[in-house]
Parts: sequence; structure tokens; C-alpha cells
Amino acid sequence: MSQLQQKWFIEHTSPATAHMVAVERYIITTQTPYQQVDIADTTLFGRILVLDGKIQSAQLDEYIYHEALVHPAMLLSAAPRSILVIGGGEGATLREVYKHSSVERVVMVDLDQAVVELCRTHLQSWHEGSFEDSRLELIYADARDYLQGVNQKFDVIISDVPEPVSGGPALKLFTSQYFALIRDRLAPDGLLVLQAGDFSLPFISTHSAIRRTVEQVFPGSRSYRSFIPSFNSEWSFVIASSSGPVSLPPAKWCDEALTLSAINLRYLDGETLVGCFSLPADVRRILHLEQRVIDDNDLVSVY
Amino acid sequence: MSQLQQKWFIEHTSPATAHMVAVERYIITTQTPYQQVDIADTTLFGRILVLDGKIQSAQLDEYIYHEALVHPAMLLSAAPRSILVIGGGEGATLREVYKHSSVERVVMVDLDQAVVELCRTHLQSWHEGSFEDSRLELIYADARDYLQGVNQKFDVIISDVPEPVSGGPALKLFTSQYFALIRDRLAPDGLLVLQAGDFSLPFISTHSAIRRTVEQVFPGSRSYRSFIPSFNSEWSFVIASSSGPVSLPPAKWCDEALTLSAINLRYLDGETLVGCFSLPADVRRILHLEQRVIDDNDLVSVY
Amino acid sequence: MSQLQQKWFIEHTSPATAHMVAVERYIITTQTPYQQVDIADTTLFGRILVLDGKIQSAQLDEYIYHEALVHPAMLLSAAPRSILVIGGGEGATLREVYKHSSVERVVMVDLDQAVVELCRTHLQSWHEGSFEDSRLELIYADARDYLQGVNQKFDVIISDVPEPVSGGPALKLFTSQYFALIRDRLAPDGLLVLQAGDFSLPFISTHSAIRRTVEQVFPGSRSYRSFIPSFNSEWSFVIASSSGPVSLPPAKWCDEALTLSAINLRYLDGETLVGCFSLPADVRRILHLEQRVIDDNDLVSVY
Amino acid sequence: MSQLQQKWFIEHTSPATAHMVAVERYIITTQTPYQQVDIADTTLFGRILVLDGKIQSAQLDEYIYHEALVHPAMLLSAAPRSILVIGGGEGATLREVYKHSSVERVVMVDLDQAVVELCRTHLQSWHEGSFEDSRLELIYADARDYLQGVNQKFDVIISDVPEPVSGGPALKLFTSQYFALIRDRLAPDGLLVLQAGDFSLPFISTHSAIRRTVEQVFPGSRSYRSFIPSFNSEWSFVIASSSGPVSLPPAKWCDEALTLSAINLRYLDGETLVGCFSLPADVRRILHLEQRVIDDNDLVSVY
Repeated sequence: MSQLQQKWFIEHTSPATAHMVAVERYIITTQTPYQQVDIADTTLFGRILVLDGKIQSAQLDEYIYHEALVHPAMLLSAAPRSILVIGGGEGATLREVYKHSSVERVVMVDLDQAVVELCRTHLQSWHEGSFEDSRLELIYADARDYLQGVNQKFDVIISDVPEPVSGGPALKLFTSQYFALIRDRLAPDGLLVLQAGDFSLPFISTHSAIRRTVEQVFPGSRSYRSFIPSFNSEWSFVIASSSGPVSLPPAKWCDEALTLSAINLRYLDGETLVGCFSLPADVRRILHLEQRVIDDNDLVSVY
Repeated sequence: MSQLQQKWFIEHTSPATAHMVAVERYIITTQTPYQQVDIADTTLFGRILVLDGKIQSAQLDEYIYHEALVHPAMLLSAAPRSILVIGGGEGATLREVYKHSSVERVVMVDLDQAVVELCRTHLQSWHEGSFEDSRLELIYADARDYLQGVNQKFDVIISDVPEPVSGGPALKLFTSQYFALIRDRLAPDGLLVLQAGDFSLPFISTHSAIRRTVEQVFPGSRSYRSFIPSFNSEWSFVIASSSGPVSLPPAKWCDEALTLSAINLRYLDGETLVGCFSLPADVRRILHLEQRVIDDNDLVSVY
Repeated sequence: MSQLQQKWFIEHTSPATAHMVAVERYIITTQTPYQQVDIADTTLFGRILVLDGKIQSAQLDEYIYHEALVHPAMLLSAAPRSILVIGGGEGATLREVYKHSSVERVVMVDLDQAVVELCRTHLQSWHEGSFEDSRLELIYADARDYLQGVNQKFDVIISDVPEPVSGGPALKLFTSQYFALIRDRLAPDGLLVLQAGDFSLPFISTHSAIRRTVEQVFPGSRSYRSFIPSFNSEWSFVIASSSGPVSLPPAKWCDEALTLSAINLRYLDGETLVGCFSLPADVRRILHLEQRVIDDNDLVSVY
Repeated sequence: MSQLQQKWFIEHTSPATAHMVAVERYIITTQTPYQQVDIADTTLFGRILVLDGKIQSAQLDEYIYHEALVHPAMLLSAAPRSILVIGGGEGATLREVYKHSSVERVVMVDLDQAVVELCRTHLQSWHEGSFEDSRLELIYADARDYLQGVNQKFDVIISDVPEPVSGGPALKLFTSQYFALIRDRLAPDGLLVLQAGDFSLPFISTHSAIRRTVEQVFPGSRSYRSFIPSFNSEWSFVIASSSGPVSLPPAKWCDEALTLSAINLRYLDGETLVGCFSLPADVRRILHLEQRVIDDNDLVSVY
């Protein structure tokens, strides 16, 4: 038996940096009409979903990503009833949304039926049957087409799409035009939350441009972040309100709200939330100085 | 000209995970009596110091590590006058200590004169001349020998030593015996702070054992952490008090204290501190359940 | 679309050297009772078969390996009728054997039925239906058990087993006891040929020990080698005769023999053979000085 | 002490293949006016010289490369007296040339004085003082400028320049115009020999184009190759004659010629030569079919 791992997934974050993760077995490798898909079992992080070469989530710690994505907006929204999930093919975003008993209706719009079906089959511990819930309407469409055509308004919109990679399907889901479409589909006091890229200093310009773009469109917004072990980095989110500033309730209030609603989480609670939203001074300075607004005609993309 | 980088530093964090960072130039590669030393210029993180194959700090973000290590304890200590720095060969820990004008005397004890001299020569942006300060007494000795032989008491003791790697020089600087020696050399209301390992979930057992060990020895302690880009991870610290529980003052108080003392920091301020000390629920649970106490006869080491 | 390959197969040839080959898709990853099996499609070499982490053969250049393994012994044997193939799970060794019309009977003994069946399904361009040939008797057994139990003698025996890796199934198929069993099953003027390891200088000690071991058992033997692109090295073979010295016929004779028999090869002809058997002076010196004989009680294994 | 090597030199041979070699220490990393230079001590191959990211030669096996480059042409030339070496900065080509006692004058033309001086200082086991020999005239110039300006004719010209990499200094030292300049500076019965790239099948098109180009310019030429462990490949050479076909003398003649001249070699002798010049059938077919001629206006370059 050879002593060292042979099968490695190497994710370059720049021409001069990369992460190596040993793979036990590749489950799926395929090209859909929209993107390259890999599903693999890694030694340290368990199963991973990879789109266009970027790890989307890992079995070991997807609960961190998905709890951090979903619950802040759901808690800050008073008894949200109608939810729009854009992307989120793993089904774990749905899983977290359903934990809020006020939810009556969820629309999920994903571009790529093939990805969703692969996730349904191979990522059961992610979705835990979420695709079968009767409150769900699952639509395969381009998010912008859907937003332009629909009349309904949503209490919370969750944009859970891959990073903007050159030639990838999510390039136009980080522009001011996209955010304007979302704003118009939010109920009064509605909230948007989106995954917003790598928060590590050498790569933060993508986040800061996304944040500045959201700020141009919404009356209030905040950046927050969680460290995700399988991403080898802090990952960022932006939350935005259609009605005014986003302010964080006290930790204690969050804990009580979760308890009252009998919502059981592994990662998120009041103290966690405070940690996520309390940003370092150097990063706040970068966000403050950022001027770039992402436009359909001036796109941003990551390496 | 070939398209890709050829010189790579590959740091394995486990047999199944590694980080790759492209190197422009190796400045120093040498073996001291105590450890392997590399100093290199990387493409993304600038200069790095590597001991026994582990990145100790990087030009791009050493301010995060050193501000996070030094200032919480210094701020929580009322006008600290005498400081003991254990390790800290880069001199950047000294640099941050001096920012507190109450400091009258600093003793720095480092095992490895060769490392300190290499840092003096090659890491000038780290120490910024700190080794020349008249308040400094620089001693080359084993920290435990020093602690056993000295009568003096210190207001703050900062343990800035490499991770415990098998066969490395810091293996016995994470045990209950070591912490007991430190406790005995702290003034009433004195504080200890130490770097305490990788905080990422797959590797957190080293931190949690260190924390539990400190808890056995000190009446009060807290874990906190900062994300360090060049470490590709959140890095942890433990702060401990010889007199009672460690409680964090409000963010506003920290900001005022820094302003009053005219201490200018890039990373740390009140909000940053809140973020560092507000730990996720899953991690708090792990810390709570940890039972392992590190002993001279039952050492812990990292991969 | 990310710019760089993410799926890499990294084969370490020593703790300080490795080859990286980008993988488009893993077809099979499994553990049989005997060994770890991977079948993958690589970007540069097409499909590869990997046993216990070692590339066995690649679509691009398996013809080089299999022609070099089979035809020298078949050509030097006058009209061989009965052939024993040990290992050779890909079926390509069979494919080459059948090209000699004198062949009346082929026994193939492979330990690992699972590997043979995976090859049958996934390596069709290797075996080209060889497993269906009516001259073939396919036996799943340990080669040494088979050799001990059988009475028949063979004109040519081809040992096409993986390198001796620690804990691997072929460890005892390179010892003097094994070669003695083979010698006893060879017809008068019978020939043995075996794959005999990496011929590159830093790793040649495995080959030289195998060769010395064969020399102890057989009255005549020769080493030869071919460069295999997907192995990133020259690969070695040992041919041995049960009756006397092995001497190479002139190139022209080989070409005529191949033409007469209407054997069409891509790699091997008279000139090729001369190149394979003409060894560099430094290597001949190493072979000459080698003293090690591999014994059941003193095994050799590669990294 | 960490278990695994951290300092790796990774040489990509294509976007989908690479070799990794662990480095103990980088001696030199610098950019001359012409190229990037690295000199490093590797674990397995000893010291290496790297130009523009390509290993030029290694301490362990440079004797193979340099003996294979120099002696075939020197042996086939009857008592060569004047030699022109183009490139060959390590000085090992000179070292081998001097072994032929007929040599009266050697001109070495290298573009890059900085590389030659680094080799003089750091590659002593390569040149063994060759730069001090009184027969040597060392000229720093572009080879084509030199060839155009000089009247002298040479018995043997050795072109020992790096592979043609995009933007590199040797791009125009593989074209028909260059070879015509050389032909005009050869004595009657003069011989040219050049290093001519990777001979491994996936990369052989560079060699075959070089060979075809030489064939257009010279009345006779041959390709030959040696396996170089530190190159992880067979490396190719082209020898060409200004007067007619190049034919290899019998092995025995070569051995006698070397003995008579008291030339002591480690790698090359008569049998070795036969091995080098006896090419596989598949490769001969590729060379035969190649049509590309490299021109100043239609350059070839390697990855």
C-alpha cells in the first residue's frame, strides 16, 4: 500500500495560492448545460459538491454555511410567510427555511435541473427530503427571467448562487440590475440575504463590490461572515432591507426567539450572530472605501 | 516564460489536506540547534517566517495576529507596567506591547538566538527596531528554566511560541506544569495570553485541550479567535486571569481606552474584540465537553 | 470557468518526488479483497488503471508496455505453443500473445477476479475481447499455489504483476522461491519474461535485485527496458531462459520474423529491440555489482 | 518536526501534467536581463540549475546529458581540433569536450554572462574548472550575431541552449535560418549536435519539427536520445553533418576509440551509443511523417 494520498482536489484561489484536499472517491463528474459538476467524498470533509471547480458545500460543515445564510434574515423578519430561494440546489437552504413555522410558501428558482437532481440523489443529508415539502414550488428558470415575470412579493429572498466565475451561470446575479429586480419583489419590510464571496483580505474586493452594489439599491444593508472550515476561509453574506437600516437585535433576544419557535440549530445562536456581525476594523475600512458598483455592463468575476 | 509558478510552499495540515503558496524567493533556509527555519517571499502574502514547516506569520497580515495576541490582555490589565514575552522572535509582539505607555519593563525569553537574529535582519517591518528599546531585557533561555529561576512578578505574560509539533521546541509550553509556573509569576490581577492553535473544527481538539488545561490552573479564562488569511484559518488565543473570571468590557469602552492612550491599531478595536470573543455555538459546545488536560507526561502535538 | 485543473492524481515515487496528472473523470474507485483499484480518464494519457496507487498502464501508451513485455520472449522462443500469463488483468498481454499463430493454449492466472472483471468492462481497447478466445483458460488463484499444483510445462511464462508494494499482492512474486517454481514449469528452452520495475537510476535497486535473483535461478537472463511516457520513466523487464544464455538475434532477423508471421506492431521491431537491450554503461555497472538476492524471508518493496 | 516536505519545485510539462521535486534549499533565485535563474539543492537529484522554470541539469545525472550531448559528435568527427559551444553555461559541455586530446581551440558563446558566472560559482562539480582552460575563448553574445560576424570554421559545433520557451532567449536558436548560419561555419565534414527537446510521445512534436528543420538544411542528420532521471523523460539530440549521411560506427569501434584516447566516461560507450541511436518504430514513424519546418517567422515553443 502506498503511503500517501493519490487523489487530490486542488482548488486554486489565485495563480499563487491553492488548497489541496484528498479525495476518497468521486461520485459524479459531469457537465450540465450550465456548469461542470463534481460530487466527491473527501477524507477530511466528507462529501463535497463542486460547481465549476469551486467547492459549494461540504458534509462536515454545510450546517454552518446554511444556518448562517438563512436564519439571520428569517429571525429579523417578523414571522415571514413567503420565501423565495434563488439557487440553493443542495436543498439545505430549504431545510433551514422550513424550520420557521410561519413559512407558508417557498418558491425555489434554480437554473440547473441537472444539479438539483444530482443533489436530490447524492446529497440526502443536505436536503433531508426538503424537495418533497408541500409548501415548495420548484421552478427551473433563470432567476432574472423569473423575477421579471412574477407579480408576487416575498417576505424573504435568499440568493444562494455560486460565485461569479468567468463564463459561469451566476455572473449576472451580482449586479445592480439584479438587486433592483429583487427589491421590487420584496414585501414592505422584506429582507434579502445573499452569499457574497470570500471574506479573506486578499480576495475581499469581490465582497466589497457586491456590498457597495447592494447599498446603492437598498435603503439598508449589512455584511456579515462565518468561518467555513472546508472553504479554508471566512465566507461572507450581505443582508439588505427594503425599508431601512438593518440592525441586529441583542443576543439574548435571538436566543429567546429560537427557543420560542423551537428551532434547533447547531451553529447559530445569539452569541454566534454577534460574532458574525462584529467585523474587524481593517475590513470595515475597506468596505467603507469601496466605490465599485457592479453593473450588467461592468461585471466582476473571481479567479 | 513558463505560465505557472514553480516554487511552492506546501503546508500539510493533515495527511489529507494542505495549503499551497507560491514562493518568489527563499531568503533563508537553515537549521538552528532547535528548529528548521525558512524565510521566504511569497507572491500573495509577502515575506513569511516558517519554523519547523509551519508558517508563523506573514508580512501581509502579521498585524492581525500580533494585535489580536497583545492588546486584549493589555487593555484588560489596568496600566500594566511589567511584561514577560515568551517566544515572539519576530519582535512584532514587542512592537505592540510598547504601544501601551504604562509599560516600564519588558522581559523577552526566547529559546533560539539564531531565530531572533534572523528576524532582526530579515523581518524589519515586523519588529521596527523593537529590540533596541531600553525597556527590553532579552534573554535566550528555555522559558521553563527562566520561570523557575526568576522571582519577579509580571502584570501580563504573553506566550507567543510555535504550535506543539512532535520533536519541536514548544512541546512542553502547553502543559499544566508550564501554566502553573506562569501563574506563580503573575502579579495579583495579572493576565496570561497565549496563542493556542488552529481554531478550525477539524483541528480544534488542540485548542480545546489547551483551554481545558489553562482552566485547571487559572481561576478564569476565555478563548477567542481571529481569522488570519495566510493561515487559511481562524487562529485561537486563550486569555487567563490569576484573580477571577475574564470579562470583556463593552466595545465602546475599548475604543475609548485606545483613543485615550493614543494607541493606533489597524485590526483591533471594540467591535473587532466583540467579534473575536463571540464564539459559535458548536465551538462553545466542543470547548464545554473537552476533558483532556495536557500534562508533561501526556503531551499533545499537531500534525 | 476556473482556469486550472482541479482533479489531480499525484503518484509519489519517493518522499521527495511525485508526478501529477490531471484527471477528467474517475470511472471506478474500489477496494477488492486484494488491492485498491482506480480507473480514471486523464487529460493527457487517456484512461489509466491504477492498483494500490501505482499506474499499471495507460490508454495512450499501453501498447509500448505490452509489446515490450510479450514479443521479445515470443520471438526468441521457436514457435511457442503453450503460454502461461501470471497477472495481466488488463487483457492486453493476452492480446499480444494471440498475435503469434503458433500459440495453442494460454493459461492466465490472476489473483483478483474483481480487477479482471473491471478491466473487461472498462478497458476494452486493452483486451479487445481477448478474454473470449477459445485457447484461454482463465484461473483466479494465487500464482504460487497454481505453480505448485500444476504438472504442465509452458514454452513461455509471462509474469505481468504489479510492483512489490508493502502489503500488496505481488510481494512474493519477485523472490527466488517464486522464480524456482517458474523454472520448474518451463519446457526445455522455455523462456520467462517479467516486468521488473522502474529503471530510473534513483530507483534501479529494485530492478537490479530482481535481476540478480533471476540470475541465481536461471542459467541465462537479460535486462531490457522501454521508456513509457505515462510512467515518466524507463520501465524494465527481465527475460530468462531455462536452457542457457539469452542472446538477441540481429534486428533484421526480428523484422523478417514479424513479417513472416504477419504480426503487426506499433512499437516493437528489430531496431526497437536493439534499443531496448542496449543498456547504458553506468546501468550495466550497477547490475554487475548488485549482490542482493530476494528471498521469501528477505523481501523487497518499492515506495 | 513536520512529517512531509514543504518546499517543492513543480515543473508543469503541460496544463495537465507536472513533476514535483522536493527542495532542501534554494541557493540562487534571480532574474538576469535574459531569463529567470534558480539554483537549488533537491533531496533526490542534488543541485539543479533551472532557467525560466525548466530544469537544465542536475548534479545526480548531468553526466548522462553532457556525455550524450558531446561524445557522439566528437567520436564521429576525426580528431576534431576547433569546437564551437553555443550556450552550455554550466561548463560541463566544455568539461566533456576537453577530454578529446585533439582539441586545440574552443569558442564558447553564451548570451547570458550572469548565468555563466552563477554556474562558475555554484556548479563546480559541473565545470571542474573548465572556464580556466587556455584553449577556451569565452564570448558573451547572441549566437546568431556571433555566427554572422565570424569567419572561422569549426570541426564540431555544439548547440546546448534551453528549450524554446515563449519569450525565452533560445526561441530563434531552433530555426532553419539559425541552422543555415551554423552550416556555413562548419568545416568540410564538420558536425553539428544540439539538444533537441523532450522525446516523450506527448511532447515529441517539438523534437520532430527541429529534426525536420535540420534535415532541410544539412545533407545528413540523425535523432538520438537518452533517458535523464531528473528530466523524468527521454531527452533528444540531433546530430547533423555538413557533408553527408550520419552513420553510427559499430559499438566495438567506439569502445576502442575511447580506450585509445584514454577517455573515461561513466555513461557512454559503444553499447550505450547503440541504445541511444536505435529508435522505436512508433517514433521513427512520427519523425518520418513530420512536415513542419521551423522558421524565424514561424517559431515553435514548448509549454
